Amino acid sequence: MKRIKDIGELKLIEKFKARYKIARHTMVGIGDDTAVIKMPGMKKLVLFTCDTLVEGVHFLRKKASGYEIGWKALGAGLSDIAAMGGTPTSALVSLAMPAGVKVGFVDGLISGMNSLAKRFNVDIAGGDTVCSPRAIVITVAVVGTVSRKDLVLRSGARVGDKILVTGALGGSIFRKQFNFIPRIKEAHWLVTHGKINAMIDITDGLGIDLYRLIKASQVGAILYKDEIPISKDAYRTKDPLRSALADGEDFELLITTKDARKLLNRKVPLTVIGEITGDTGKIENLKPEGYEHFKR
Amino acid sequence: MKRIKDIGELKLIEKFKARYKIARHTMVGIGDDTAVIKMPGMKKLVLFTCDTLVEGVHFLRKKASGYEIGWKALGAGLSDIAAMGGTPTSALVSLAMPAGVKVGFVDGLISGMNSLAKRFNVDIAGGDTVCSPRAIVITVAVVGTVSRKDLVLRSGARVGDKILVTGALGGSIFRKQFNFIPRIKEAHWLVTHGKINAMIDITDGLGIDLYRLIKASQVGAILYKDEIPISKDAYRTKDPLRSALADGEDFELLITTKDARKLLNRKVPLTVIGEITGDTGKIENLKPEGYEHFKR
Repeated sequence: MKRIKDIGELKLIEKFKARYKIARHTMVGIGDDTAVIKMPGMKKLVLFTCDTLVEGVHFLRKKASGYEIGWKALGAGLSDIAAMGGTPTSALVSLAMPAGVKVGFVDGLISGMNSLAKRFNVDIAGGDTVCSPRAIVITVAVVGTVSRKDLVLRSGARVGDKILVTGALGGSIFRKQFNFIPRIKEAHWLVTHGKINAMIDITDGLGIDLYRLIKASQVGAILYKDEIPISKDAYRTKDPLRSALADGEDFELLITTKDARKLLNRKVPLTVIGEITGDTGKIENLKPEGYEHFKR
Repeated sequence: MKRIKDIGELKLIEKFKARYKIARHTMVGIGDDTAVIKMPGMKKLVLFTCDTLVEGVHFLRKKASGYEIGWKALGAGLSDIAAMGGTPTSALVSLAMPAGVKVGFVDGLISGMNSLAKRFNVDIAGGDTVCSPRAIVITVAVVGTVSRKDLVLRSGARVGDKILVTGALGGSIFRKQFNFIPRIKEAHWLVTHGKINAMIDITDGLGIDLYRLIKASQVGAILYKDEIPISKDAYRTKDPLRSALADGEDFELLITTKDARKLLNRKVPLTVIGEITGDTGKIENLKPEGYEHFKR
């Protein structure tokens, strides 16, 4: 009898993708940062995403406060909306937790989500609280909107595009994973000031997420390894470049565009880190370490 | 240090409710079956809900198939949308599970959701799959739409309304909890053929859910105890009436209306089971057993 660990997450997602015949309302389904929905009688498109954090996998109560975990849980969803060029409007919070969880922890969780929600005018509009036998499991679902002209998918990269990244990468484990600012404002500025062909947020590491982008776009890439902006915290690790490539949870935006020159200014911290090639499915100059993490 | 078990779920929800200042987009927030969102530039309202099932709490892998659990997980969300008078369009599935889960179980889960999704033209548009150390936790988020004129809240009951219920209640544990048909079509027929003042779906038992409805509406109720439609499966229990009042997971609709006579026909299986009174917060003829379950 085959088990999930035998087939891995990617094959699992493929299963979902193959089985669900997306039809009426869905413009983009399984396989991008968020689903894109055409709602009847609505000009703008609706973005719809959810992210789950599991205690012991994504956080430890000993190492992170309720505030930080709440921030991260909502932030991941907001980052997904940003990666499509959209604006989040509402979130639902589902909280499965053991009866022994301290009330103070939940108060912190609410505060962390609240702070981030207020910052981006997002309403936390409801949710579900249920008992869980052991681990805390938090799922945050977010909806948002995007104009058709601003919508950016991960599948739109074109040969000759420059690859750019916001901010600096690596070392998120030291703190950034719990206090990152989702790049909503930056994404909005980018999609309204240039033609962004493809975009994805970096959650599992530059290596993997660039690979996802080129695979979805059916293109290849050259990575300018020496140009990758490495965060201060990445230098606290043994191999800062590897940290920038593979740590993940940077929640920075990876974009491809032919308007790089126009977009490089001080409004958004942007660095050119490569270019899109026709060598489908291949990334030049990406060390195998980048892939290992992916295969695991 | 206070823990969640010391304050209970209701106080927990109150905490969320008190802390989140619902603002821009939310017409109805925490405290109804779904959130109601005003999306910019959209005539219809957007409904947004999520439900979580936890292994060991809501289901046991030994006692229910993947198909049944998938059906239930999506069905609960569709039932919430029905209870607002709306039409579901899209769902996201978040699946946290141990690596040792059998692939066959997940195939069943996908099939169960798929069958129900197809039946109601709902797209499963994406989601998240993550590892969980022990229990399977499934969260399904659903969005839908509703015309302003069709929207029904649980807070709209008026003195003199008749209280009606669809279908029959009790004994859901024997099978109905895993194969119920969310009352989407019935809800649509009801809101378009009469003035429904209040509606809620019965998830935790008629006793509790009627109490929630009268509390939200700031009214009271008389229950016609002898009129409650009791399911065949409820008669397999020791106390069929108690089963109908307190088992829950019936996923039937509880409605209040002054148009009862007009609505009682064969399109929708409806029974008048009481009336709304001005005796705020009180339900006449509801045995204490109905409340016990609630207080626990």
